[in-house]
Amino acid sequence: MRMVRAAWIAALAAGITLPAVAQFARPEEAVKYRQATWSVLNLHFTRIGAMTRGRVPFDGRLALRDAEVVAALARLPASAFGPGTDLPNDHARPEIWAETQRFRELGDRMVAETTRLLTVAQTQDLDRLKAAYGAAANTCKECHDAYRSH
Amino acid sequence: MRMVRAAWIAALAAGITLPAVAQFARPEEAVKYRQATWSVLNLHFTRIGAMTRGRVPFDGRLALRDAEVVAALARLPASAFGPGTDLPNDHARPEIWAETQRFRELGDRMVAETTRLLTVAQTQDLDRLKAAYGAAANTCKECHDAYRSH
Repeated sequence: MRMVRAAWIAALAAGITLPAVAQFARPEEAVKYRQATWSVLNLHFTRIGAMTRGRVPFDGRLALRDAEVVAALARLPASAFGPGTDLPNDHARPEIWAETQRFRELGDRMVAETTRLLTVAQTQDLDRLKAAYGAAANTCKECHDAYRSH
Repeated sequence: MRMVRAAWIAALAAGITLPAVAQFARPEEAVKYRQATWSVLNLHFTRIGAMTRGRVPFDGRLALRDAEVVAALARLPASAFGPGTDLPNDHARPEIWAETQRFRELGDRMVAETTRLLTVAQTQDLDRLKAAYGAAANTCKECHDAYRSH
């Protein structure tokens, strides 16, 4: 089982991501898709946070499963921020489409840090998990501060 | 790369799933979560269907990536159908909570068929993909007919 886990992490680290230009029939579909991926990602990420903050008992097996979902989902939303998907019923600021390079870099950092979170979750070491969780959470915050309206 | 893919598929086949009783703070959170997972799952599944039906050109690499997302997401919603999550703003019929065993069996079949779809997507064989897609789609239909209101 440990080898299977390691191989999965290797697959993620090797960069199995979706193409940047994906096929959405309508802008509304892209917005719904990215909102749904953030929603699922956030729930699993928050569960890890509840453990690292001591709000629920640490369970390394559950943390690893949550980290697997987080790392897999973090790769999805980038493909749904194409041109023309700046809709008023979303939290995306228009700066996203004016600063595409910085936005993409922040997304890539999120992918890198959530992949690292998954690697660390494998160790079952709560102190290391706390640090990796904090680093991943910082990539959320940095991007939200710059590109999410409230 | 082929070995990495094979290992990932082995990990999925080994049954890396979430526990049946998961931690949702409120019933609304569980409903939102399962709706979001179905939404993302459906988009990637539909993309494979567009290829198997010839509506878009077959691209085995894209089909494989879609199948990876489908197989990973298919394992998530079961945990969100706990007692008390029968809310009026959802499509879930109340029979789900009266026939929990059959509902779970149908869910397990979806997981099995989407895992098989991923295995077949690795072969890059369009005819085999068509058959596996059809089998997976049947598990969607059977469960929707019994347990989804329209």
